[in-house]
Amino acid sequence: MKVTQRVKKILANYESDNPGTKANLARILMHGRLGGTGRLVILPVDQGFEHGPARSFAPNPPAYDPHYHFQLAVDAGLSAYAAPLGMIEAGADSFAGAVPTILKVNSSNSLATEKDQAITGSVNDALRLGCSAIGFTIYPGSEYQFQMMEEIRELSEEAKAAGLAVVVWSYPRGGPLSKEGETAMDVCGYAAQMAALLGAHIIKVKPPTDHLEQKEAKAVYEKQKIDVSDMAKRIAHVMQCSFNGRRIVVFSGGAAKDLDGIYNEIRGIRDGGGSGSIIGRNTFQRPREDALAMLDQIIKIYQGKA
Amino acid sequence: MKVTQRVKKILANYESDNPGTKANLARILMHGRLGGTGRLVILPVDQGFEHGPARSFAPNPPAYDPHYHFQLAVDAGLSAYAAPLGMIEAGADSFAGAVPTILKVNSSNSLATEKDQAITGSVNDALRLGCSAIGFTIYPGSEYQFQMMEEIRELSEEAKAAGLAVVVWSYPRGGPLSKEGETAMDVCGYAAQMAALLGAHIIKVKPPTDHLEQKEAKAVYEKQKIDVSDMAKRIAHVMQCSFNGRRIVVFSGGAAKDLDGIYNEIRGIRDGGGSGSIIGRNTFQRPREDALAMLDQIIKIYQGKA
Amino acid sequence: MKVTQRVKKILANYESDNPGTKANLARILMHGRLGGTGRLVILPVDQGFEHGPARSFAPNPPAYDPHYHFQLAVDAGLSAYAAPLGMIEAGADSFAGAVPTILKVNSSNSLATEKDQAITGSVNDALRLGCSAIGFTIYPGSEYQFQMMEEIRELSEEAKAAGLAVVVWSYPRGGPLSKEGETAMDVCGYAAQMAALLGAHIIKVKPPTDHLEQKEAKAVYEKQKIDVSDMAKRIAHVMQCSFNGRRIVVFSGGAAKDLDGIYNEIRGIRDGGGSGSIIGRNTFQRPREDALAMLDQIIKIYQGKA
Amino acid sequence: MKVTQRVKKILANYESDNPGTKANLARILMHGRLGGTGRLVILPVDQGFEHGPARSFAPNPPAYDPHYHFQLAVDAGLSAYAAPLGMIEAGADSFAGAVPTILKVNSSNSLATEKDQAITGSVNDALRLGCSAIGFTIYPGSEYQFQMMEEIRELSEEAKAAGLAVVVWSYPRGGPLSKEGETAMDVCGYAAQMAALLGAHIIKVKPPTDHLEQKEAKAVYEKQKIDVSDMAKRIAHVMQCSFNGRRIVVFSGGAAKDLDGIYNEIRGIRDGGGSGSIIGRNTFQRPREDALAMLDQIIKIYQGKA
Amino acid sequence: MKVTQRVKKILANYESDNPGTKANLARILMHGRLGGTGRLVILPVDQGFEHGPARSFAPNPPAYDPHYHFQLAVDAGLSAYAAPLGMIEAGADSFAGAVPTILKVNSSNSLATEKDQAITGSVNDALRLGCSAIGFTIYPGSEYQFQMMEEIRELSEEAKAAGLAVVVWSYPRGGPLSKEGETAMDVCGYAAQMAALLGAHIIKVKPPTDHLEQKEAKAVYEKQKIDVSDMAKRIAHVMQCSFNGRRIVVFSGGAAKDLDGIYNEIRGIRDGGGSGSIIGRNTFQRPREDALAMLDQIIKIYQGKA
Repeated sequence: MKVTQRVKKILANYESDNPGTKANLARILMHGRLGGTGRLVILPVDQGFEHGPARSFAPNPPAYDPHYHFQLAVDAGLSAYAAPLGMIEAGADSFAGAVPTILKVNSSNSLATEKDQAITGSVNDALRLGCSAIGFTIYPGSEYQFQMMEEIRELSEEAKAAGLAVVVWSYPRGGPLSKEGETAMDVCGYAAQMAALLGAHIIKVKPPTDHLEQKEAKAVYEKQKIDVSDMAKRIAHVMQCSFNGRRIVVFSGGAAKDLDGIYNEIRGIRDGGGSGSIIGRNTFQRPREDALAMLDQIIKIYQGKA
Repeated sequence: MKVTQRVKKILANYESDNPGTKANLARILMHGRLGGTGRLVILPVDQGFEHGPARSFAPNPPAYDPHYHFQLAVDAGLSAYAAPLGMIEAGADSFAGAVPTILKVNSSNSLATEKDQAITGSVNDALRLGCSAIGFTIYPGSEYQFQMMEEIRELSEEAKAAGLAVVVWSYPRGGPLSKEGETAMDVCGYAAQMAALLGAHIIKVKPPTDHLEQKEAKAVYEKQKIDVSDMAKRIAHVMQCSFNGRRIVVFSGGAAKDLDGIYNEIRGIRDGGGSGSIIGRNTFQRPREDALAMLDQIIKIYQGKA
Repeated sequence: MKVTQRVKKILANYESDNPGTKANLARILMHGRLGGTGRLVILPVDQGFEHGPARSFAPNPPAYDPHYHFQLAVDAGLSAYAAPLGMIEAGADSFAGAVPTILKVNSSNSLATEKDQAITGSVNDALRLGCSAIGFTIYPGSEYQFQMMEEIRELSEEAKAAGLAVVVWSYPRGGPLSKEGETAMDVCGYAAQMAALLGAHIIKVKPPTDHLEQKEAKAVYEKQKIDVSDMAKRIAHVMQCSFNGRRIVVFSGGAAKDLDGIYNEIRGIRDGGGSGSIIGRNTFQRPREDALAMLDQIIKIYQGKA
Repeated sequence: MKVTQRVKKILANYESDNPGTKANLARILMHGRLGGTGRLVILPVDQGFEHGPARSFAPNPPAYDPHYHFQLAVDAGLSAYAAPLGMIEAGADSFAGAVPTILKVNSSNSLATEKDQAITGSVNDALRLGCSAIGFTIYPGSEYQFQMMEEIRELSEEAKAAGLAVVVWSYPRGGPLSKEGETAMDVCGYAAQMAALLGAHIIKVKPPTDHLEQKEAKAVYEKQKIDVSDMAKRIAHVMQCSFNGRRIVVFSGGAAKDLDGIYNEIRGIRDGGGSGSIIGRNTFQRPREDALAMLDQIIKIYQGKA
Repeated sequence: MKVTQRVKKILANYESDNPGTKANLARILMHGRLGGTGRLVILPVDQGFEHGPARSFAPNPPAYDPHYHFQLAVDAGLSAYAAPLGMIEAGADSFAGAVPTILKVNSSNSLATEKDQAITGSVNDALRLGCSAIGFTIYPGSEYQFQMMEEIRELSEEAKAAGLAVVVWSYPRGGPLSKEGETAMDVCGYAAQMAALLGAHIIKVKPPTDHLEQKEAKAVYEKQKIDVSDMAKRIAHVMQCSFNGRRIVVFSGGAAKDLDGIYNEIRGIRDGGGSGSIIGRNTFQRPREDALAMLDQIIKIYQGKA
């Protein structure tokens, strides 16, 4: 497979990484229907951990089976599949080579009372399971934020040395943040910046709203007249906050919404120069045929065909 | 011993494991009177730690002797014997090769005021004692849950690399959970799912009741009309929550009840597709002959003969 | 020195241990005037740490000198001498080979406000000082109990691999326990059981009273009619709680009492099948000749001659 | 490049360091327009982490790009460039050899509620990225101060063994300190002393005010008639507190002020014998041409030409 | 240099130590004007860390320079010089071999609100800097006491294996102790005992007062009629508490007092059999000539000439 000029340009931004890590980034960027375009759509399935199995899979019971998600990612032509240890273990051999995988190495659950996550996987696990990357969530703002950052620092150093890529879910929570503030424009840009500074190759954030949370930041946005009035502009600002576009940033789909709502959000990500989507519940909670149709449409939007 | 097709099919679900771990799973699945059937009955004796020696063994004083339990597991034709370090050390040589053993590597006690356990054994201990697996308890919901999950993650990685199997006791406690919620259908399924996601080969949970604990989960169970009206259906749902049956799940016997109560529960486990039972106090607190008779009947139920 | 049948039988109970550890246990069991009988008397001198030097040694000032205790243990024909790092370092060379030593590797002091101990010695220290065993205190019930158990687990694994024996001081304290409960029959039996489960070779507990502390345990003692009416019966029950006599259990002397009180307690230990005594303050706080006379009498009691 | 006598004299103060570390100090001291003078100006860009991207870079949007800062440091002829992991990774290859770099290995952020920082880089990172030094912030006074000091101790030992230099940002905060006290003369001198005692090669402190914070220290300043009446005298005292001038001390620029204010402060640092400046926001928040003009003037001041 | 019989006798008390450690103890005991007498005077300079630079050095400004203290220790003919990492690093090469050095590996400061210290040096640092010993402070009684004891245990094991000596500053503080209790006779003896039990080669305590702090100890002192009425008797008791004189114990000078006060205290230490003094502020806060004169007088007192 010949790596495209577009992907080569993206890879060139990762100038300190070894060939192993660049090859794994290339695997993700060259895989599936968006392969070579510089855009990507990732299937993440960590909701069994985060929300429990029934809340995650009962709406579409075949999804209880770990193989279902591998197959869906393959059949939809997605860029990669991300999941916790057990989910990857249960299909890593059957689907070896079929789709790049990202081992999510920390997880929380809905019984938790603290804004933290448990480390549930390792770089060695990622290597023995043939994964291309590790994934890790940080909660900037939480009283555990420094500890989480130190965990990803250590895992990241180990992953990079082993030629893996590092994906950071940067989800501000807790501390001084209001609920609305978790997806505020300033906070989302800050979350992306911190993930980039921590050395992430791929950054996952939520699509920002036009809310501005932090007082000192709000003053700057207003003084500098930063336009946050529509999704494309907000996405473009997140990309700017991610080393001026030198880092891959994918946006989560969030809670279930109607198809038009999803497609419009995707168009905003596309038009703002976002790298792509990482979309879980909206995918696997639909019947398989509906999910495939939706993903087909999303891919077309990223291809500029819809 | 020729591994049966049924067991081969089960082993195939552990597709990421090395031959060492698969061989140890096979040892357990091929041992005893249920060997080869895909069902299993395990004798766990950790009550000396959890409740103290007199509460555990005074009803049947020969059980103060660690050899008693090895012999009982052998004579009853059980699949494996699980106990803490000292108990295994005290009989590992006399009963070497006589029954697969599971080293329980963490333990609590009734003097404890916190919902946590101490790590009391290691993978090296399991190896030097000839065990087939390590066993570990997590308390999802407890304020120590993330720490416990990180402990089993680390022990599990080490155990798998050494060719051992990993058994996780997943007992929700504390945090937002009511007492009734600890055995609720949704919570039990969630507990099984988390153990599976943590990479357990064998999952131990309590048989669930029809109570639904978590508000968001309850809404899904009702909307999706998940039938939790009898034990077999609830067991089937737990198996579904365990990677759609790709993981071995055994159910504890719980507090002492009458024999008919026990047998009916076992039939529910069998009919729901559960992998088997892990049954301690109900066994060793009876006179030896009564215990053997009861275990004979339980095995017959799993064999479809009772 | 030919190991006696009695000692061989005791060693056979440590069936998982390597020859190095068995040799060190044999050294203790074959040493001194009780050598070969299966009984033992150990001199522990950790009161300088626990209570301070003046409270410990001013009543008999030669005892300020670490050599005093080595010499006393040798001259009295005791089985072993146990002390913290500095005490052993100060005499290990002068008394090399003269008496088996046990390095007490954790210690508290009377300035402490928490029910915990500091680790003050290591397995490497024990090895370089020629010790036969390490000694470690746990406080079951304390909020630090799990941490202490994890510490001894780790030290114990290391000690056993190095061919050392492990002695556990199991002293219930704190948490739900009343002061009276610390020496209650049920709690003392539980303490012995936990030390055994943690893999101790030699267990040190206090002689139990006939008090029953924990409600659920009390109910069982009463229902099962466990006789705790005299010291010999209580000792026998502690031995039962220690793997039905498969583990060596020694009993502390406790606070100073008159000689007849001491001798009667020793007779109770002997008649209940206890392995022996570990007796500090009652020994070294007396003038040397008085101490030797008392130890002579104690040894005679264990020999059945008094 | 021939190392000047002035720089040789400075290097001689680092008499315990290996040639690797001395070479890296020399690289910084010999680089840029102040190379060889014993003075230095460092560009630090950690505000994206500390304050967020918009507050840091929106006033001068090209600064969102990590390459901007490397180029600015090169074009202005600065001595070194300091930044967190991601910033260095994003330009380390493009600017390899162009300017000495300092990897800032811990960071805080404006969502934090605790006076601590997360470790976000390692000595290995510094080595693989070709850095000359690691940078680390301590908060003397904070409840986390001992932990932070232990972190830098460990990192520093590792860095020195690997031939890197160590830069310590010593910023008193929290504990008994008032806000005014953070930059008090006594506290600033104490902060420099502690960094020196911790083994820092280069110390960064804020320019002190004439406030005296700690009661016992104030008494000494008054009794000994230590003159703190102007900036040059205060700087001279900080140098005295830094092993009587045996350590390199650079002073931060602090919050934005007008150019004359900046230049006067620089003259005070120069006249007091300070080693130089480490100046971030005042630099990169101005348009590039303005920043270059300002840095040119600052360098001329240190050269004694302005 | 021929080791004297007196020093050989002292070294013989360190019977478990390797020749490397004994050689380093000998270096200290054979160095300076008291070399060979079994007495020693050590110069400690950690007040820059503990109290800040101005409070420590402003009364005698040349003392801001680390070389000043090395030179003072050399010129006064002292036994050793003790200081934190940075102070030793700054002169270790210039004064290599000129005076034995003790690396103080933990430190507190006057901004601290907790009775703890940060570890600020390592055994590797001591080795690379050519030190003869490490120094470490414990605060018996503090809520951090167990942690500090575990730190020195670990450092001590490492130091001894590397042939270094271990000096413990044992300063009771916090917990149940009153301010007066910190220097009480019973507490000071206990502090010395604990340092000895932790394996210290050289123990530093404060000269005790005749106050008795702990109730149970007080009762023993009174019952056993321990004479604490003058300094020599109290020192003798501290030596008794230090393994009956088997350990070297040096006494701090404490806060500044007049020369006669100092000399009388030294005579008390000498007459009570104390090993010597460790005297900082009283030394370096005087003009150099005054300090040399005072140290000359102190040495003469220890030589029995004054």
